[in-house]
Amino acid sequence: MYSNELLGIFKTNGINLGDKIEISSKEIKVEGELMPKTEVGEPNAIVLKLDNGYNIGISYSKDMKIKRLAAGTGTKFQKTNATSKPGLPKVTILYTGGTIGSKIDYKTGGVHMLLDPSELLYEVPELSEIANIELKQLFSIASEDMSYIEWEAIAKEVATALNKGSKGVVITMGTDTMHYTAAALSFMLKNLNAPVVITGSQRSSDRGSSDAFFNLICSVKFATASDVAEVGTCMHYTSSDDKCAFIRGTKTRKMHSSRRDAFRPINDKPIATIDKKMDIQYLSDYNKVVPELDKPVKADTKFEYRVALVKVYPNSDPDIIEFYSKKGYKGIILEGTGLGHLPTSTNHNNFLWKDHVKTAIEKGMIIGITTQCLYGRVNENVYRNLRTIRNLGAVYCNDMMPETAYVKLGWLLGNYKKDEAEKLLNRNIVGEIKKRTRFDEFLD
Amino acid sequence: MYSNELLGIFKTNGINLGDKIEISSKEIKVEGELMPKTEVGEPNAIVLKLDNGYNIGISYSKDMKIKRLAAGTGTKFQKTNATSKPGLPKVTILYTGGTIGSKIDYKTGGVHMLLDPSELLYEVPELSEIANIELKQLFSIASEDMSYIEWEAIAKEVATALNKGSKGVVITMGTDTMHYTAAALSFMLKNLNAPVVITGSQRSSDRGSSDAFFNLICSVKFATASDVAEVGTCMHYTSSDDKCAFIRGTKTRKMHSSRRDAFRPINDKPIATIDKKMDIQYLSDYNKVVPELDKPVKADTKFEYRVALVKVYPNSDPDIIEFYSKKGYKGIILEGTGLGHLPTSTNHNNFLWKDHVKTAIEKGMIIGITTQCLYGRVNENVYRNLRTIRNLGAVYCNDMMPETAYVKLGWLLGNYKKDEAEKLLNRNIVGEIKKRTRFDEFLD
Repeated sequence: MYSNELLGIFKTNGINLGDKIEISSKEIKVEGELMPKTEVGEPNAIVLKLDNGYNIGISYSKDMKIKRLAAGTGTKFQKTNATSKPGLPKVTILYTGGTIGSKIDYKTGGVHMLLDPSELLYEVPELSEIANIELKQLFSIASEDMSYIEWEAIAKEVATALNKGSKGVVITMGTDTMHYTAAALSFMLKNLNAPVVITGSQRSSDRGSSDAFFNLICSVKFATASDVAEVGTCMHYTSSDDKCAFIRGTKTRKMHSSRRDAFRPINDKPIATIDKKMDIQYLSDYNKVVPELDKPVKADTKFEYRVALVKVYPNSDPDIIEFYSKKGYKGIILEGTGLGHLPTSTNHNNFLWKDHVKTAIEKGMIIGITTQCLYGRVNENVYRNLRTIRNLGAVYCNDMMPETAYVKLGWLLGNYKKDEAEKLLNRNIVGEIKKRTRFDEFLD
Repeated sequence: MYSNELLGIFKTNGINLGDKIEISSKEIKVEGELMPKTEVGEPNAIVLKLDNGYNIGISYSKDMKIKRLAAGTGTKFQKTNATSKPGLPKVTILYTGGTIGSKIDYKTGGVHMLLDPSELLYEVPELSEIANIELKQLFSIASEDMSYIEWEAIAKEVATALNKGSKGVVITMGTDTMHYTAAALSFMLKNLNAPVVITGSQRSSDRGSSDAFFNLICSVKFATASDVAEVGTCMHYTSSDDKCAFIRGTKTRKMHSSRRDAFRPINDKPIATIDKKMDIQYLSDYNKVVPELDKPVKADTKFEYRVALVKVYPNSDPDIIEFYSKKGYKGIILEGTGLGHLPTSTNHNNFLWKDHVKTAIEKGMIIGITTQCLYGRVNENVYRNLRTIRNLGAVYCNDMMPETAYVKLGWLLGNYKKDEAEKLLNRNIVGEIKKRTRFDEFLD
């Protein structure tokens, strides 16, 4: 909500929500449509929608003049409140928090979360042209605070929404652990026969450079118009607002801390891109929707959280395996070097990973091997040191990313007996393992 | 050494090393120059240098015919044995093992190491045109088995070689942990006034597609002809043999498990490229050799190995901090998510990283924060959760790679008091932290 001071100024100047106004001071002069504001916390920031479609937040100060330029058509707000439009497909948006639902706090310069996620929809009236949106807020947390408990809740909500007739589901969340969630939902959702699109933004929705709106529009479009029956992320593919990429949930990774095009396919191409005209271009094979299929979507959400992801590096202490073993952990995914190496003979401190891997496997733990290179695949046949580790019973995880292997092992151990889980770890289930890598999949 | 059987066949057919010969059977027909072979282990593989400059190893079988086509000029072998040529600069090659000194075992299909690294020089006669090579074997180990003990030994040898008049030093090693070694040498070598070039190969030197020779030639060229006073890696920049890149030691990373162009600059451009014509093109700023500088190179090699590199991911157990604390560890580099996030509030198992970070810092540990995205930088000012962690005293490491931050912290704690080490962790020393990132440095 705007502060009483601002509401007073709006009233005095005959300004209504949606009107075109001008804010000016010595430093700035901005024109735009006055946007609604449902949150508390920054009541003195005025949100304007600029001509280019972006929103901007301006921290109000006494020296600013606020002038009404023209009446708002009101259509934008009507649109967002649109009740079901006949002919449009239904899409469920599951809101969980994250930057896409955040705003800058103009006092501290930091970013905090919206209290009312529906504000996001007000700001993207285009959505109502694409689909009848059903917005459901599941939680409002940062993605770094998400755990398997949220993954389970989201998976169940996705199944419910699809079984109730949604054409597709869009999940908005923080980007930091988005690829972990994407992998988790990929494994958890069975009989999936619709697109499940995870999106978010790298920059909060009141910043001029925000990617929130374009990502959300592309995601809703993809959820309605594609025939992809997979889970994936839909974020900027390039650093401008001209294209989003839908990347398979088990092959996507946040590769940059701040760029809008941070999400990249690892050992894969995007399944598709969506451009400004909302044209979808398919770039690789995918699991297709089967219209005649009439099985309800099932959410197999059990997750064994006592699985660890551990990086192996020079001087690293293999006792860490025992640490997890003592805590009752059932499996560890190791990020080996190169083709999946671990130190097998070393001249300091008896840091012999080989021996600790052996003991852990004998005690019943599953040890999976991936590569910290990220790109490429592990291969237990090339060097003697690799064969040594394989012969101890470690599972080489092919071209699976460490993060995906970690999520997969937790999910497998939640849903299968140990022997079965071990067998399935390096067998493809939902596209997480590909036999061949295309040449142009490196650093795409 | 070739087997007695093969030596007999060579003798019978009047074949000497360097002669052009033809090997034929039902399956193959190959022409090339017979190369020397000093190793044991695969005495029945014949090594030929093909016209394209590559070597090939052929496992001998009884049905093969071996024919002498022409006499060798002998020049190639003479060249490699060349004693000091006047006018050429001296370059020291420090051999440590790794794929560049490996061959395929034609029985098992696996790769094992050469016993005599000078074999590598025989096969690259071009080197003798570039420099007077002094080859020194330090060890013969796989890079996954290298620890700080080898880093210390290498750093000392580099200092000795440069102080004895080498124009530059080339270090050959396995590629898996090459970027860790590169970072370690970057910090350890003080008063460095010459190029220190680390190289290796992704494919063993007897494979047609080996990158060993081109990498080695470019490295020796760069060690003699560049005016760069830094440590870096010199490996294929592209997937063909047309260009190598010299990448700063603190900004280089193995990003692919098998491709020849696996080493990429992270948040940086290569310092230079070296092409087939041995032309050097400089792409970014670097520390230049100062000809009048006459300080001996010093190797500050002390390394505190009780430093850990730990990835933070959904459901991850923060007790791991206590595990290291109990073992007497002095510092931990955390690979946070995105801008450097750790779980600060979570709804399962009390896995609150925040609290554990707090306790560790209070007990005197240094906690550094990096991003598992790899590209981009951490920034403690954007979100409240980040400021929370910073306020506990964690050090945000800017655009430093997790691996580099790990090596730096180990080195700092080996050479400085705790408070000083903590202060220096996120201050630039040898190019590991850059204030600005160029737009084209993502996924280069």
